[in-house]
Amino acid sequence: MMLVNGVAQTHIDVTDRGFQYGDGLFETITVHNGKAVFLTQHIARLTAACQRLHIPCPNLDLLHTEIRQLCQHVEQAVLKIIITRGSGGRGYRQPDDIQPTRVLSLHPFPTYPDNYATQGITARFCDTRLGLNPTLAGMKHLNRLEQVLARAEWNDDSIQEGIMLDINDCVIEGTMSNLFYCKNDQLYTATLTQSGIAGIIRALIISHETVIEHTYNKADLLAADELFVCNSVIGIWGIKQLANHAFAVGNKTKYLQHWLTQQATHNA
Amino acid sequence: MMLVNGVAQTHIDVTDRGFQYGDGLFETITVHNGKAVFLTQHIARLTAACQRLHIPCPNLDLLHTEIRQLCQHVEQAVLKIIITRGSGGRGYRQPDDIQPTRVLSLHPFPTYPDNYATQGITARFCDTRLGLNPTLAGMKHLNRLEQVLARAEWNDDSIQEGIMLDINDCVIEGTMSNLFYCKNDQLYTATLTQSGIAGIIRALIISHETVIEHTYNKADLLAADELFVCNSVIGIWGIKQLANHAFAVGNKTKYLQHWLTQQATHNA
Repeated sequence: MMLVNGVAQTHIDVTDRGFQYGDGLFETITVHNGKAVFLTQHIARLTAACQRLHIPCPNLDLLHTEIRQLCQHVEQAVLKIIITRGSGGRGYRQPDDIQPTRVLSLHPFPTYPDNYATQGITARFCDTRLGLNPTLAGMKHLNRLEQVLARAEWNDDSIQEGIMLDINDCVIEGTMSNLFYCKNDQLYTATLTQSGIAGIIRALIISHETVIEHTYNKADLLAADELFVCNSVIGIWGIKQLANHAFAVGNKTKYLQHWLTQQATHNA
Repeated sequence: MMLVNGVAQTHIDVTDRGFQYGDGLFETITVHNGKAVFLTQHIARLTAACQRLHIPCPNLDLLHTEIRQLCQHVEQAVLKIIITRGSGGRGYRQPDDIQPTRVLSLHPFPTYPDNYATQGITARFCDTRLGLNPTLAGMKHLNRLEQVLARAEWNDDSIQEGIMLDINDCVIEGTMSNLFYCKNDQLYTATLTQSGIAGIIRALIISHETVIEHTYNKADLLAADELFVCNSVIGIWGIKQLANHAFAVGNKTKYLQHWLTQQATHNA
């Protein structure tokens, strides 16, 4: 099921600047029992990204109506919203009258084994490095070649996530998730002012717990007591193995998983 | 006129990874008297970018046939070729069987006043900085938000190009062009190992003249004797004014313009 500017269709114009330049942004949202989970937070991030990219924000009443239209009667799914700067001529210059494109699409909810959440996952370090770009850092924009190349590094289904470093050897995040570690009961995660995507679950955790956002390296990560990754679809997964180092899915991770499940129930 | 995988149509699937992630690359080529100018060089760059992005290169015979089909009987136009990783599921992971999308489109040749070439253009420095990303540097890939944001900084038609610096204050290139300067008869241009797009005209100049590729800053640029920008559509334009500094369109620029016109005639 897909809506392009409110119309049920599955194609867009070649001239759309989303296709020509990756000139847009997106949100990936869990749908549960007909409701979009953490929708307030996703819409706030979408609005903020539109402002940063100077794309006129879609009418939010209209957007909410379309989201309800798509999600009602849906038990479990993933809702993806893409906003682009719309169609424009050849060349980077944007049209004087920007008519943004909005695409809402529903996708099957991925079926992950229960033990990813309960026992933890296996992760690897990616060779592909995240570049440094303060202008774009933090945003879930459509320029995602770094993640595509990093995710293409492995094809082994026993590995669930790849951890990405930046070009200065600082640990940043997973290819599709944010990364936290816990050391002596203190939570840490990477500063995302130069690269990375500031996820909704990451923000929720930071608003609930004292988290030190800082710059850290592989050795810091491997010396941690607990590691976990998070995003809006998987929730929180502990990491049980990373680069031949074994970790326990500890109490902090389990506590946050439990807390997040409660929050998701209240925010859907 | 537009061909999508050989079919005359003006739309692509929303699921195309070019739209979802900017997962692809492009070429912008001048068409003159029915021929694509510097086509050998453009196809070589396209092939190299496909290899770097691990996108299967389109069949080159087919591509050449489609280019001829589009360009025959066309006096003057711009041909844009886009290659993407094709359609894939939600998520960065690429499909096991990649079926690339190829889009060929013809656009009106922009009408620039003759004095841009003869008298030089006015340029400005952009505030938007280029990020550092060795994995992607040099390629004409579809992740072009940096250029879009830089080009959106001005709307004054008396300014023809914006010069971009990277986050380390090094001068790199124009929003749509490469940048050279001449000092004491020696040509210089920026190293493009961390950011920027390695243009076809840039490569032709480097193959013809001794050019020092190096890292340089605003002061170096403003102390130059001559400045010029180049790309496949504009050719070479001298810069007569940049940030309140006036420059002459000097002999080196004029010589290269003359030489490039000859080369273009022989390579079309």
